[in-house]
Amino acid sequence: MAIAEEQMRFLRACRRQPVDCTPVWFMRQAGRYLPEYRRIRERYGLLDICRAPDLAAEVTLQPVRTLGVDAAILFADILLPLIPMGVELRFAAGEGPVIAHPLRSAADVGALRPLEPEEDLPFVLETIRLVRRELEGRVPLIGFAGAPFTLASYLIEGGASRDHLTTRALMFQAPDVWHTLMERLTEAVTAYLRAQVRAGAQALQLFDSWVGCLSPGDYREYVFPYSRRVLRALAEEGVPAIHFGTGTAGLLEWMRQAGGDVIGVDWRSGLGAAWQRLGPEVAIQGNLDPAALLAPRDALEKRVRQVLAEAAGRPGHIFNLGHGILPQTPVENVKAVVEMVHAFSGR
Amino acid sequence: MAIAEEQMRFLRACRRQPVDCTPVWFMRQAGRYLPEYRRIRERYGLLDICRAPDLAAEVTLQPVRTLGVDAAILFADILLPLIPMGVELRFAAGEGPVIAHPLRSAADVGALRPLEPEEDLPFVLETIRLVRRELEGRVPLIGFAGAPFTLASYLIEGGASRDHLTTRALMFQAPDVWHTLMERLTEAVTAYLRAQVRAGAQALQLFDSWVGCLSPGDYREYVFPYSRRVLRALAEEGVPAIHFGTGTAGLLEWMRQAGGDVIGVDWRSGLGAAWQRLGPEVAIQGNLDPAALLAPRDALEKRVRQVLAEAAGRPGHIFNLGHGILPQTPVENVKAVVEMVHAFSGR
Repeated sequence: MAIAEEQMRFLRACRRQPVDCTPVWFMRQAGRYLPEYRRIRERYGLLDICRAPDLAAEVTLQPVRTLGVDAAILFADILLPLIPMGVELRFAAGEGPVIAHPLRSAADVGALRPLEPEEDLPFVLETIRLVRRELEGRVPLIGFAGAPFTLASYLIEGGASRDHLTTRALMFQAPDVWHTLMERLTEAVTAYLRAQVRAGAQALQLFDSWVGCLSPGDYREYVFPYSRRVLRALAEEGVPAIHFGTGTAGLLEWMRQAGGDVIGVDWRSGLGAAWQRLGPEVAIQGNLDPAALLAPRDALEKRVRQVLAEAAGRPGHIFNLGHGILPQTPVENVKAVVEMVHAFSGR
Repeated sequence: MAIAEEQMRFLRACRRQPVDCTPVWFMRQAGRYLPEYRRIRERYGLLDICRAPDLAAEVTLQPVRTLGVDAAILFADILLPLIPMGVELRFAAGEGPVIAHPLRSAADVGALRPLEPEEDLPFVLETIRLVRRELEGRVPLIGFAGAPFTLASYLIEGGASRDHLTTRALMFQAPDVWHTLMERLTEAVTAYLRAQVRAGAQALQLFDSWVGCLSPGDYREYVFPYSRRVLRALAEEGVPAIHFGTGTAGLLEWMRQAGGDVIGVDWRSGLGAAWQRLGPEVAIQGNLDPAALLAPRDALEKRVRQVLAEAAGRPGHIFNLGHGILPQTPVENVKAVVEMVHAFSGR
């Protein structure tokens, strides 16, 4: 009975049902801070791991074994679906993704091929099937994709960006190019996430990581219709969807309206104030500052308690960081947060 | 009479008094987008200009002549006061400021010298006096300084940063070092801004440009007491103070409480929603996306009208961008915005 509650904690919280204690998982819980992940990365490139279901499944399962988190999340790169769409992509050491020919024109958009997930990314779907088998129901598996805006921003910037200025400029200067690109990406993302559910993903996270660079007015005009279309399609799949972004304190109402059973917020929004703005009909995920995991134990504990206190008193909180675990994070601190969240929130 | 109204437009709006039309100025209105500025920069380095009052005054006045803005802002670098405090600083081409030895320890903080503005930065104060003489009362002159947090973040990161992670980590790991550093910077910033008022600055802007990387809880604990101390000291100087930051949609109530006659917000906060949260007892500055100045004229006009509409119906709006003018901005577009703001908001 206790085991069944543990298994269901995350999915129940997504649906705002009562739980025995607050579920917790971490963005980038499979990653460089884990020695067992680094050992695999010494021998294989990032894309090699994504393309080898046995390796990707192993990496997906590592944090479940090591940390005791309440959900697994598929190991894959957010830009993976762009490769079969015709985008030349490499990962430069320490630099993140580099797109050889950043997208700039209607011709560039026209050259994008539609995504056929079963044919183009069979290894991702096989990883999902493998992980589900290995998990044997211990915890649910979350699938994910980048949201249309965030994928568009990588395509246009050519990689990571501080201010996404080229994206904003293209949006303003060539709205036709922008809208055609967003149409294409909306179709690809929807197909990709549906295929993940068919392969066995029990929840989905839509990462609109960089959408916080926009004004509310521009979000509404250039992003909202597409995110809404993806999230409405997912609502028919019967699994909960988490709609996540960073720096979104000015966009929360619009993100809520675009959809998602859970809204993911980063540490720059107060969790209590954010939930008040989102209303009671949605769950919330977040929002410890990833830098807090670098702090001494007492300072870390204080911040974990603060996050729990902001969300206390109603069901539907999933504990997470405000963004991904940093590579320099001590594993013991991540484990400690899982224990704290369960202990401090338990009935 | 009309001339007097023009002269007073900006200062009256800072105090939420009725104006003939909305005043407008731009952060980085003296800068690389202006050909007359680039001509001077071909011959002189950034710090050379700051240290030569005749050049700094000329550069301060260029946008007043070219654009017809309602205020001049002192040309100076935000990091200038750190140099006499003992910080080794250079400007790398295309990279921005680079601090030779980023601050990491109590010893580094201990080595900072107190700032004596009249002795250490006489050229800044002389620039202010020169500009005031040249302006002959046409428009007011704004002085400025970086806020303690933002100066601390440069000192700790060693330059520009995407996420200010080293700053957040130091704050959490070594709170004693942090608080001592903030004490020192609070004293320096306060002394620097007071000296600017004595030299003739008619308004002040406190740039807490990077504070939006913090959670509301951490802002309250690590930043608020210091910003409040600076802003309370300025309130005694009898000139209006603008309290500005970017990405601050989660922090507005706390920034308001820290002080300032005007709160400056970037484009990621809806201006109407932000003002509602700030309450009626404060003026607001902002908040066109600087990327909108790269858009075709009709798209630019639409966004200018949106900003004005969000602030319509009560006094105390100062039109500005949400951050500085981008170097690639066409001068004609900046001029057009000044004309639009005056025309669309005029009685």
